[in-house]
Amino acid sequence: MNNNIEEIVREQARAAKEASRRLAVTSSAVKDAALRAMAEALEENAAKILEANAGDMAAAREKGTPRAMLDRLMLDEKRIHGMADGLRQTAMLPDPIGEGEMETIRPNGLEIRRVKVPIGVIGIIYEARPNVTADAAALCLKSGNAVLLRGGSEALQSNRAVSRVLVEAAEKAGMPKGALQFIDSASRDAVGVMMNLTGLLDVIIPRGGAGLIRRVVTESAVPVIETGAGICHTFVDEGADLDMALRIALNAKTSRPAVCNAMETILVHEGVAKEFLPKMAKAMREKDVELRGDEAARAVVPDMAVATEEDWATEYDDLILSVKIVKNIDEAIAHINRYNTGHSETIVTNDLNRAHRFQREVDAAAVYVNASTRFTDGFEFGFGAEIGISTQKLHARGPMGLNELTSTKYLIFGEGQIRA
Amino acid sequence: MNNNIEEIVREQARAAKEASRRLAVTSSAVKDAALRAMAEALEENAAKILEANAGDMAAAREKGTPRAMLDRLMLDEKRIHGMADGLRQTAMLPDPIGEGEMETIRPNGLEIRRVKVPIGVIGIIYEARPNVTADAAALCLKSGNAVLLRGGSEALQSNRAVSRVLVEAAEKAGMPKGALQFIDSASRDAVGVMMNLTGLLDVIIPRGGAGLIRRVVTESAVPVIETGAGICHTFVDEGADLDMALRIALNAKTSRPAVCNAMETILVHEGVAKEFLPKMAKAMREKDVELRGDEAARAVVPDMAVATEEDWATEYDDLILSVKIVKNIDEAIAHINRYNTGHSETIVTNDLNRAHRFQREVDAAAVYVNASTRFTDGFEFGFGAEIGISTQKLHARGPMGLNELTSTKYLIFGEGQIRA
Repeated sequence: MNNNIEEIVREQARAAKEASRRLAVTSSAVKDAALRAMAEALEENAAKILEANAGDMAAAREKGTPRAMLDRLMLDEKRIHGMADGLRQTAMLPDPIGEGEMETIRPNGLEIRRVKVPIGVIGIIYEARPNVTADAAALCLKSGNAVLLRGGSEALQSNRAVSRVLVEAAEKAGMPKGALQFIDSASRDAVGVMMNLTGLLDVIIPRGGAGLIRRVVTESAVPVIETGAGICHTFVDEGADLDMALRIALNAKTSRPAVCNAMETILVHEGVAKEFLPKMAKAMREKDVELRGDEAARAVVPDMAVATEEDWATEYDDLILSVKIVKNIDEAIAHINRYNTGHSETIVTNDLNRAHRFQREVDAAAVYVNASTRFTDGFEFGFGAEIGISTQKLHARGPMGLNELTSTKYLIFGEGQIRA
Repeated sequence: MNNNIEEIVREQARAAKEASRRLAVTSSAVKDAALRAMAEALEENAAKILEANAGDMAAAREKGTPRAMLDRLMLDEKRIHGMADGLRQTAMLPDPIGEGEMETIRPNGLEIRRVKVPIGVIGIIYEARPNVTADAAALCLKSGNAVLLRGGSEALQSNRAVSRVLVEAAEKAGMPKGALQFIDSASRDAVGVMMNLTGLLDVIIPRGGAGLIRRVVTESAVPVIETGAGICHTFVDEGADLDMALRIALNAKTSRPAVCNAMETILVHEGVAKEFLPKMAKAMREKDVELRGDEAARAVVPDMAVATEEDWATEYDDLILSVKIVKNIDEAIAHINRYNTGHSETIVTNDLNRAHRFQREVDAAAVYVNASTRFTDGFEFGFGAEIGISTQKLHARGPMGLNELTSTKYLIFGEGQIRA
């Protein structure tokens, strides 16, 4: 462990904590003006940011970075406007802070209210996308939280440029100094330091690949909100509208295969497999999807690869689909509850009872009837923004918007009451 | 690590997970009947439980266990009736499961609802009190959660007797087999195993001393809800009703000094110190409270011990009170936010502005105006029960009742919608 990086990160967290006290009582008007100023500043400084990004891109190309990652790393005028628009949209959302959740007068006359307050200091650990720097800052600051950002080393120059612009604009617009902190270091030790900042950081939200998330969940002493892993299923029930089922399956698999709400496995009721599977196989293959089936599925569509135990437990994030025929809804629910990651699941059915059972018994953040799993998203749910999709059950489950970045506080008024 | 204990605990957690699926869809009627049957069974088997407890007590006395711990360990007829009454009261509370939290129809016609669901499997790690076995079981089962209990080794015989009675009664009354699990082992390794049961345990709630809580928070890979630490303050403002301030301070310090919502430090505005402190010192000493003051406080009441830096950061849990004179509310708030544990804080004041500022700016689960901090409690807040008081900001903050033992799930109905 590099002592220097430890001291630097700890000092940033201390400053963020200090700022969070003032930020918690900063008005919506000031916060929103700051977000708009930050948007403006990004656009004004686009040239500087693109220059920094060109540096990251050149270094990444030299290292032979895969194309998909280069795409995530790349900024252009359009993406910078996208970041600015995100900031402006967040400014327009209602401020959750201060909202009353309950209010009661106890028999002894004590008046008890529960209101939304900021969480405090939020640590975000992310990977290659520099736009997360602006998106995460916007959501955390709007909800009254100070934020300590740690981006991937491959995006260091871009993130440095973006965060400098944002910090300067935010402070000029009246935000508490220190509320937005970016860890300007490529050292991997920074993540280890963050995970031990109990008392300074209130939560860490890792955004990135499975490896990063697993590490943070396992090692962090600071509470973590787990996001992102998605092994999502579509179950095509007996008696389902098979045209609808095909549309939903194609959308769930192919509209954006690398995202967490894309489908990885399709479960087909044995009563409709002979009719549905050949059509589905044809349509999927036209979209370049590789199919891997269980024995029963391969009996219907013989030219599929064999799905192994590992397939059921894999998030492909790619144009691959595993296919399984099930006897009934019980087998479908059991398979899903065994292999899913608690993200999004859907049933295509016309049967009210089975729709109801599926929604009650499947254990996931979002359980659909007759719709694509691809809708699990803060924007699609109407939250106006999203910091990630929680796949855990504590604090927040499913898409996390501004409300999910708040905590609560009990405010109690008395007239001298003491406890018997 | 004892492999045997690891395998046993993991198998219990697996069985609990399995049971949690069925418990999540078990009706309130069945759950409530089971809680009442468990209450009955405790009373019917009181003799057997008391015999087991006598064994624990004898062993504890032989080891020279302190009197306070012996008192926590001890069961008698009255305490067994208390446990049974707790179960019956929990049966009478409204079942939170299925309660709608929001409902919206999106522009594309998708109907999205968010409803309360059980968390899944809750691990409870506790120390000497055998009554926690019944209390925790009641709250977890009522809220549809399976529960894995790990009590202190000194209460092993008592907990074994209580849990056997409860498990038998619960299953006979129709609760899913395996929903209530007690780890029947004195091995300390059991705690280590529990903390690594990601995927099987959804949350661990440690209930006990600071050492246990610190260990679980630091080491657990399973999410943790931190409870219990309480360095609570009373701030006596200038212009406060000093008789009220004295009543509140005495109640907060002396009514039950060993609990987490008791006061540890009193902050007194310099404008009222000369009038208030001598009276307070006299009254506190009549209740056998030892006083430790800062320099300014000792200038007013000279025969106090010296409060050191360590005193401000100590939860005495005893008849000791540290005393500090502050210049104004700013200094009071700054002191509290530096040393408190996020539990309960109170201001005694007549000034509306300062009351408001104190509530907004003090960072704690419960912030009082003109009332004793001793009210922070699930029963006093009207929740009907309590599994602990959360001092963290994620998921739940303050007293945790049945609602705080739930998660949520999004249920979405469509008519074939796919995402553009």
